[in-house]
Amino acid sequence: MTTSFPMNAGDGPYSYFKNSHLQKEVLDGSKEMVRDAITEKLDIKIMLSSSNTLHIAEFGCSVGPNTFIAMQHVVQVLKEKYHNINILEFQVFFNDHVTNDFNALFRSLPIDRSYYAFGVPGSFHGRLFPSQSIHFAHSSCAIHWLSKIPKELLDEKSPAWNKGLIHYVGSSNVEVVNAYVAQFEKDMEMLLNARAEEIVEGGMMVLVTPFASYVRLMGFFGSSLKDLVNEGKLDESLFDSFNLPMYFPSPEDMTKVVEKNGCFSIERMELTYPKSKLVDEADAKTLMINLRTSLEGLIINHFGSEIAEEACARTILKSEEISTWMKVNYEKPSQLFVALKRK
Amino acid sequence: MTTSFPMNAGDGPYSYFKNSHLQKEVLDGSKEMVRDAITEKLDIKIMLSSSNTLHIAEFGCSVGPNTFIAMQHVVQVLKEKYHNINILEFQVFFNDHVTNDFNALFRSLPIDRSYYAFGVPGSFHGRLFPSQSIHFAHSSCAIHWLSKIPKELLDEKSPAWNKGLIHYVGSSNVEVVNAYVAQFEKDMEMLLNARAEEIVEGGMMVLVTPFASYVRLMGFFGSSLKDLVNEGKLDESLFDSFNLPMYFPSPEDMTKVVEKNGCFSIERMELTYPKSKLVDEADAKTLMINLRTSLEGLIINHFGSEIAEEACARTILKSEEISTWMKVNYEKPSQLFVALKRK
Repeated sequence: MTTSFPMNAGDGPYSYFKNSHLQKEVLDGSKEMVRDAITEKLDIKIMLSSSNTLHIAEFGCSVGPNTFIAMQHVVQVLKEKYHNINILEFQVFFNDHVTNDFNALFRSLPIDRSYYAFGVPGSFHGRLFPSQSIHFAHSSCAIHWLSKIPKELLDEKSPAWNKGLIHYVGSSNVEVVNAYVAQFEKDMEMLLNARAEEIVEGGMMVLVTPFASYVRLMGFFGSSLKDLVNEGKLDESLFDSFNLPMYFPSPEDMTKVVEKNGCFSIERMELTYPKSKLVDEADAKTLMINLRTSLEGLIINHFGSEIAEEACARTILKSEEISTWMKVNYEKPSQLFVALKRK
Repeated sequence: MTTSFPMNAGDGPYSYFKNSHLQKEVLDGSKEMVRDAITEKLDIKIMLSSSNTLHIAEFGCSVGPNTFIAMQHVVQVLKEKYHNINILEFQVFFNDHVTNDFNALFRSLPIDRSYYAFGVPGSFHGRLFPSQSIHFAHSSCAIHWLSKIPKELLDEKSPAWNKGLIHYVGSSNVEVVNAYVAQFEKDMEMLLNARAEEIVEGGMMVLVTPFASYVRLMGFFGSSLKDLVNEGKLDESLFDSFNLPMYFPSPEDMTKVVEKNGCFSIERMELTYPKSKLVDEADAKTLMINLRTSLEGLIINHFGSEIAEEACARTILKSEEISTWMKVNYEKPSQLFVALKRK
């Protein structure tokens, strides 16, 4: 049983629907590479029967609108690639955890879409589709979510006990980092095993993980929580038992898990530096609201809604301080793009 | 653009999830006929390739649990029929309007299901799937919902103006009945045209519509609304502009629309009289709560939530009176079962 951490539902001020600019930037940064992957590398046999349907899966779709932009792009490029095939139809499968707000997703589906749309509830670490039924898979800003927190991070007696921090970023303890890496490897093993069954020979999967610079901002949430501990409003052991279930893989991490699985060839793996208005302009307020959208559910789940609200509000109040910090510690926004082909 | 009338969402006291006993009885009443249809009539070519997947569509699934019972049964019978095929996999597509509570549906999916589950948002009067992609389609207690109210029912100048009533049941005006029939025929034309494209040759569609006796109870909702008019709490013209968008087809109605479409053969069409504990025991209270579950959204939409709440509560208060009426006017519960095969 894996844990799920849905983005904020609905369309309120802190909803993912209204606050996914950063994920949109990641998406924009990978568009041309998605095009190249499909145009140059995708190599599936489309049966020239009466039913020519391409099956596209989006893993970790959340509620839109980014997922619709991504899928529209994929469908468009596939149409261009297979323009010589008469009557080509598209099925797009939008996957996310069962706790995702599929109602919101479905209600905002583009009216003029040129594909049949389906929702697929469940963890992408397990099987979701029949054997050899997917031609192209896509996942942006999703696979860095771990299925769970490695238990040694919470164990006082373990060398990997992550006391005083909420993530491996900022930790100088290599055991903490190793525990995160090990969980990422286990999760990716499950993910790749499942996809290896589901993706047809010659079919492809594109995985995109977000900016490393974005990650560093999470420490500010941690310091807001720590302030609450210092003020006696939050129990220290509750704080110490909280860790963010995210790991941001390096190209080496990805290569290792793909090679271990053995069913996919790496067609492209690239750390890229797409333009990010939010990072370049040190727009901390938008970034922190975006982070809140992603983390609030998680924090509520662990600390309750009062502490969560307080920690989120305090972090957003620090926007100016964070903007200043970002300017001094400017780090070029980067993302990891991986295109895999099923052997 | 068709209108949608979702069953009550969530799992509260008047949710469809907790109040769908009647629909369950309809389902139970058709189980053996579904088995016969699949075992004796279904005639699809399963490709003996590496991917042997059967695609099953459920139209008008609502939120469960009935839809899961129905689909489990269909999958079971298909497994028995094709037991000689190695590694047979199942995809079940749960369809309902985009306003349906898919979150509730997904969160109550059986853990031990032996099929891959998908949600398909959209009206079954239009296309939902690629060409020739469905092997077996099923719909229970759904196709009697009309896509809209024929406008002549609301037109003072039309001979079909349905003044003083909320449905054709109870009306002595043949023009009113004809307007309902005409809308049913239009809707079924769209539904059958769409399914004719989507269902493979030899594939089947089973349609079940509910008890006629159930229909007669709707008049009690109408009389509760009329009481509110008489008490000056509800505007008479607002009452007159309300009509229930449901038509309960006869075997002749169904034959006519299927023959007009021309793409399906009628393998079985039967008015059956399955056991209904609720009707036999004149359990008016359960029946009226069940009706409330189905009609509340519709009534809120037209009259606002205050009047809707009042009308529903008053109708349920009449349970004893209705029970007495049911005993005097006992009508054997009947349902229409239709099994169609794509030619």
